[in-house]
Amino acid sequence: MKKLKEKNISIKEIATLCNVSVATVSRVINDNGRFSEKTRRKVMDIIKQYDYKINMVAKSLRTNKSQSIGVLVPNINNEFFSSVVLEIESYFFPKGYSVFICNTNGDENREKEYLKDLRLKGVDGLIYISGMKSLPDDYLKRKIPMVCIDRQLDINSDIVIVESDNRAGGFLATQELIQKGCKNILILKSCKESSSSRARFCGYKDAFAAANLPVKENLILNINITVEGAKNAVTHLIEKDIEFDGIFACNDWAAIGSLIALKESKIKVPGQVKIVGFDNISISQYSYPAVTTINQDKKRLGQEASEALLNLIDGNCIVNSHVILPVTLVKRETT
Amino acid sequence: MKKLKEKNISIKEIATLCNVSVATVSRVINDNGRFSEKTRRKVMDIIKQYDYKINMVAKSLRTNKSQSIGVLVPNINNEFFSSVVLEIESYFFPKGYSVFICNTNGDENREKEYLKDLRLKGVDGLIYISGMKSLPDDYLKRKIPMVCIDRQLDINSDIVIVESDNRAGGFLATQELIQKGCKNILILKSCKESSSSRARFCGYKDAFAAANLPVKENLILNINITVEGAKNAVTHLIEKDIEFDGIFACNDWAAIGSLIALKESKIKVPGQVKIVGFDNISISQYSYPAVTTINQDKKRLGQEASEALLNLIDGNCIVNSHVILPVTLVKRETT
Repeated sequence: MKKLKEKNISIKEIATLCNVSVATVSRVINDNGRFSEKTRRKVMDIIKQYDYKINMVAKSLRTNKSQSIGVLVPNINNEFFSSVVLEIESYFFPKGYSVFICNTNGDENREKEYLKDLRLKGVDGLIYISGMKSLPDDYLKRKIPMVCIDRQLDINSDIVIVESDNRAGGFLATQELIQKGCKNILILKSCKESSSSRARFCGYKDAFAAANLPVKENLILNINITVEGAKNAVTHLIEKDIEFDGIFACNDWAAIGSLIALKESKIKVPGQVKIVGFDNISISQYSYPAVTTINQDKKRLGQEASEALLNLIDGNCIVNSHVILPVTLVKRETT
Repeated sequence: MKKLKEKNISIKEIATLCNVSVATVSRVINDNGRFSEKTRRKVMDIIKQYDYKINMVAKSLRTNKSQSIGVLVPNINNEFFSSVVLEIESYFFPKGYSVFICNTNGDENREKEYLKDLRLKGVDGLIYISGMKSLPDDYLKRKIPMVCIDRQLDINSDIVIVESDNRAGGFLATQELIQKGCKNILILKSCKESSSSRARFCGYKDAFAAANLPVKENLILNINITVEGAKNAVTHLIEKDIEFDGIFACNDWAAIGSLIALKESKIKVPGQVKIVGFDNISISQYSYPAVTTINQDKKRLGQEASEALLNLIDGNCIVNSHVILPVTLVKRETT
């Protein structure tokens, strides 16, 4: 028997080697329909011998899919995003899918280019972590299954959205600061508009309303939500002698930046100023003092989005097209 | 004049619209050969009017490439790797290339699958950050341009390698501990064999040799090089009463894990035990105490690898097929 190279094997060749029809091989692989135990064993032996990828083949037989998906992510260098992406990869790879990750830098132009290119490469579906509000015409013309994580698009339509309960998170963070006695609570939020940022801000205002306190306009800061961005913003406030005793940083990196600025000005945390972050990435756990933060369930965000996308790809019904996952307050040393 | 949609425009259509030959359009786009200023302006006007991607077209005219590359990375959730990948993206995207990132989990099977799939998707080249020692047969049969970062393959051949001077890094880290008075220096290195791990270990031994000190076998630990892995290993040593006063952790995550284990056992850092990490990622900077570490130049690693790959794709000569980048000791609070 001629030894076949893996990449050259086809269903047809297996059929020839087994002396059965292509339809029979397909039935055995899919375990669907009638065939004898002898035939089954014969087909499976050949498959095993040639290290045949059953899942791949069965799938492509049934669905004619490329067995790959694309993930658009704004910044894989932020552990929050990379953790979610890792979950997506862990979900899809064992199911025979390749996962192609594209870093968009939160830039609309890049998002569009990558959307186009992923489609050209024939991916079966997309998971889209993005702040972009509208979808490129190109996409809308030729729809492929898509799920959004963390941020929703304004064009609502039938796109599945999986996100954390950002509003509850904003509320919990601000409530913690209020309960610990803070009167002037700064919010550091992204200057880039996104639904998650908006929701966290709503939660911040909810907490003030619940405590019958007014929101102070000069303590609402739209910044580049990075270590540097937050450090500069907080340093600037200190220099301008603006009074604050609490900081709600809309991500953990901004919480770290605030910490550095306060340390440099010899302001004690949590003695003089308290801080709550958002995301619960490693940096908040291992910093000093360790940062109180809002935990986003990165594992479930990745899994729920993956499951929804797989359902869309397989043409199954989507029960819930807007999944909102609960968040929790993780108390550490900055409050 | 009929308005053409961007995706349908071809060189031929531009030529028709300008009433010149395809060769002339090509010469104008590539700025190569003879054409009048009038012709140049005519062609450029049409190109501008239709938002034509000059780079893309010029490239594909010359080379017939897909304008995309693949990056294989063991763990994008480790900031060292994600920083390097981000540099690669920043290098290639403005040059008209899409970058498809695949997370291999350091798993040989995944690496092989992704290598195959990236090739099937027709990428023009690969950047390969991996511990895998041999390349799949598949790859060797149909070579495409490839550059390895950080770790080298045993099959040396003509593959370009870009890496940090890991041996010098291991030396500097260990020398720092010796100079600060450590006598029993633990090394926490990955249980997965890789050239970078081997080189760091050589540097560790070099430093002992230079100081005329013996290497102690029971202080060489091959671990799962994560926070948890290091924490468990160090806790185990403490419980077994094995004496050590210095730790060279082969990455910063392991340094953090060591710190936690020591804190839990109320052992003072750097008072009783000193620590040096490797990589210089954010976590080492913001932990408490901040971790002394070896800086790898992530920006240059990404850039040098990208430049080499682009040269290979363009068929240019590679001057240096083994780029070794210098490392530096970053002194912080754990030594």
